[in-house]
Amino acid sequence: MPDLPADLEQLLGAVARASKRIADTLRTGDAHTKSGIENTFGDEQLHLDVVTNEIAFEELRACGLVHIASSEETPTEEDLGAPKAAPGEGFSVSFDPLDGSSIIDTNFSVGSIFGVWPGRGLLGRTGREQVSSILTVYGPRVTLVIALPQAAAGPRTVQLMLQHDSTWEMIHESLRVAPAGKIFAPGNLRATADNAAYKQLVDFWIAERYTLRYTGGLVPDVYHVLIKGKGVVTNVVSAAAKAKLRLLYEAAPIALVMECAGAASCTAPGPNGEHPEPISILDLPIMGLEFKCGVAYGGVEEVAIFKKLMYPGSSIDAQS
Amino acid sequence: MPDLPADLEQLLGAVARASKRIADTLRTGDAHTKSGIENTFGDEQLHLDVVTNEIAFEELRACGLVHIASSEETPTEEDLGAPKAAPGEGFSVSFDPLDGSSIIDTNFSVGSIFGVWPGRGLLGRTGREQVSSILTVYGPRVTLVIALPQAAAGPRTVQLMLQHDSTWEMIHESLRVAPAGKIFAPGNLRATADNAAYKQLVDFWIAERYTLRYTGGLVPDVYHVLIKGKGVVTNVVSAAAKAKLRLLYEAAPIALVMECAGAASCTAPGPNGEHPEPISILDLPIMGLEFKCGVAYGGVEEVAIFKKLMYPGSSIDAQS
Repeated sequence: MPDLPADLEQLLGAVARASKRIADTLRTGDAHTKSGIENTFGDEQLHLDVVTNEIAFEELRACGLVHIASSEETPTEEDLGAPKAAPGEGFSVSFDPLDGSSIIDTNFSVGSIFGVWPGRGLLGRTGREQVSSILTVYGPRVTLVIALPQAAAGPRTVQLMLQHDSTWEMIHESLRVAPAGKIFAPGNLRATADNAAYKQLVDFWIAERYTLRYTGGLVPDVYHVLIKGKGVVTNVVSAAAKAKLRLLYEAAPIALVMECAGAASCTAPGPNGEHPEPISILDLPIMGLEFKCGVAYGGVEEVAIFKKLMYPGSSIDAQS
Repeated sequence: MPDLPADLEQLLGAVARASKRIADTLRTGDAHTKSGIENTFGDEQLHLDVVTNEIAFEELRACGLVHIASSEETPTEEDLGAPKAAPGEGFSVSFDPLDGSSIIDTNFSVGSIFGVWPGRGLLGRTGREQVSSILTVYGPRVTLVIALPQAAAGPRTVQLMLQHDSTWEMIHESLRVAPAGKIFAPGNLRATADNAAYKQLVDFWIAERYTLRYTGGLVPDVYHVLIKGKGVVTNVVSAAAKAKLRLLYEAAPIALVMECAGAASCTAPGPNGEHPEPISILDLPIMGLEFKCGVAYGGVEEVAIFKKLMYPGSSIDAQS
């Protein structure tokens, strides 16, 4: 890809190689029982989580440009040394190697998530400091979207597809999400049982005849909005249905991909007063490796509707 | 597979070969523009519909056992002659080569559907007369489920997975769907706007904290229930949101896969008095190649809830 610093291009190459190897591993589920009659899926899921995690670490280590790598599977800060990085350069990378591993047995599309920060360290930083983030989707095809916030012509999100000869072809040079568009993916729907605002929002989407798409995999659901160029994805929390998404490994890298495509991201208010004002996910400080939050991603006007219903008493409304 | 008549095993082999070729075709989207910058998805979808249709016809023709083949893409009865069938034997096959082609660009899992009837002809028969039906899912893996209503130990639905060496491994010898289980896939959700009973049913599922999974692809959504072993999939109609599912190409073959796994299937009432009593989809006569209907598939108790709310005034209730 043009316009990219050489070291970032090398890092993206490592992510692409990891993605291809993970795709090959998923193709037959190497851990699958050969006896053929028992459902050993729990074991398979565990095995795939471990193997895909190792693949991502291997490729990030091999590229020689990574200081700190941290995986949702093993949430510690691993020091990879960045032996090939020039002084003051190199990256720190967060990743979730197999997002949606609980639906791999159903043969739904699943994904990987990578966030890339310049320099050394992840804690205390924000998603906005990322120099790139990458989502891989493993479905009938293997596709990548890459956020490029510092591209010469302005922030953009590109899409690539793995070819039969193991090369990657660019399919879209700049994915764009329209401000309005009636597609919804209501994550953590159970929260509507004890979150009246979320119930009202879901009722609004249904009454307004939005198209429902919800696989239960965050990466495919976000990807659907990116490719269709419209819609909104949410994961809202309540006292009984707690936040599940990790800011470092999932929420922040996805927010960069979406905002570079012209979409918006937004916090959801927590049941104990967390996030009393709506802000971009990219502005949330990473207070811990496993810090969790509720989210909305989507077209700017769709996220504005989310804010209006989920933050009825906030100063946003008071100012308007 | 044991217990299978040799001719049915040969026919299933043809379906498996078609599925493998379709998977290879989907992998990179052969019609994709090489210019890399335009969204030519409409053209790609059209091209894939044509190519996958040709692949299925080629393999069914090559096996020499098919009298009549009919595709959702080209809804006529094609006479393939069944040159290798013994007198009085051979099959007629309906198929949808690429169900969910509108979501292939988003890299969601998609599927193929095949229904297999003994002898010659499709019109006027019922789904219950099928000797097998097959669903292929193209996702991170390529998997088949096959309904075997006449298996020696009783009806069953088996699952196979395509391996790296192009062979198929049996993963489950008998998938079973439990009577009750809180997963829902509410198809044609827009019908809730002018179908009060469906709105009430969706509200029930949400209030009862059912898990939502809805990709918008009928094959993956049904497959999710089969693999998780619980849940319900619906596609309900209204005056404004008309029936989309074709009995011959989609609804009847899927009903056989589900009922052979211990699940139930059921009609949905139409806005003009169609299907005034709930019956199994397998008992609906195929009144035309493109005859459409609303459906529910799922655990026996989940479908009973569907009947109770969707057919409140039917004689089913009067009798109980």
